Amino acid sequence: MKLAHIGIAVNDLDAALKDYESLGFRQHQRGFVEEQKVEVISMEVGESSIELIRPTAEGAVSKFLASKGEGIHHLAIKVDDIEKALVGAKAKGLRLIDERPRLGFGGNRIAFVHPSGMHGVLVELVEEPK
Amino acid sequence: MKLAHIGIAVNDLDAALKDYESLGFRQHQRGFVEEQKVEVISMEVGESSIELIRPTAEGAVSKFLASKGEGIHHLAIKVDDIEKALVGAKAKGLRLIDERPRLGFGGNRIAFVHPSGMHGVLVELVEEPK
Repeated sequence: MKLAHIGIAVNDLDAALKDYESLGFRQHQRGFVEEQKVEVISMEVGESSIELIRPTAEGAVSKFLASKGEGIHHLAIKVDDIEKALVGAKAKGLRLIDERPRLGFGGNRIAFVHPSGMHGVLVELVEEPK
Repeated sequence: MKLAHIGIAVNDLDAALKDYESLGFRQHQRGFVEEQKVEVISMEVGESSIELIRPTAEGAVSKFLASKGEGIHHLAIKVDDIEKALVGAKAKGLRLIDERPRLGFGGNRIAFVHPSGMHGVLVELVEEPK
């Protein structure tokens, strides 16, 4: 089990990048994720990364910003077998947002677990392409 | 630069651990941090860890729970030289909670950067003992 990334919802990517650079972070990649209606800057931190996320249209991230303001939006965990992880989580009573994996950034297969069962944390499961 | 840990504020450590175990996390350590008035369960995730944090008395974490409910409380980053990191952050206009490092868990030297400059994220800098 490894941490894939931590997603931080922000209003302005350039302003956020500048502030994170002040602490020593550096941009690794920048791109649009059409399916989730966001633009993302990823900054590598050891084997994980921090992602600054800006909504490009109405969606989950724009709603988060409107209700809670800027801050950590989700935590993404790398798993080897996402179907197995989802079946296991459901069997143990966790509430799933995605019962089946969907396509994420860079060919990843992803699924979200509802924050209600994770003590307020939106958890994304990520299976990277083999 | 590496991710030290992600701190999640919870009301009940045993209940939270049970739910995180459902996703495959395992307890690594459990203990009290008197200075911060919390009890912590750490779960290793690759080179980082996730910490479940329960307040044992009135303090920053109990206030967070009262105002925001359970969820991610802070993000901790390992740095080689915490004085240098603090001087650099201040010079670049970031607001510091701790101008000087203080003693954290396990002999770590720690300092917090205010979330106002980090787009809603409370960032802890951690210098581990040499």
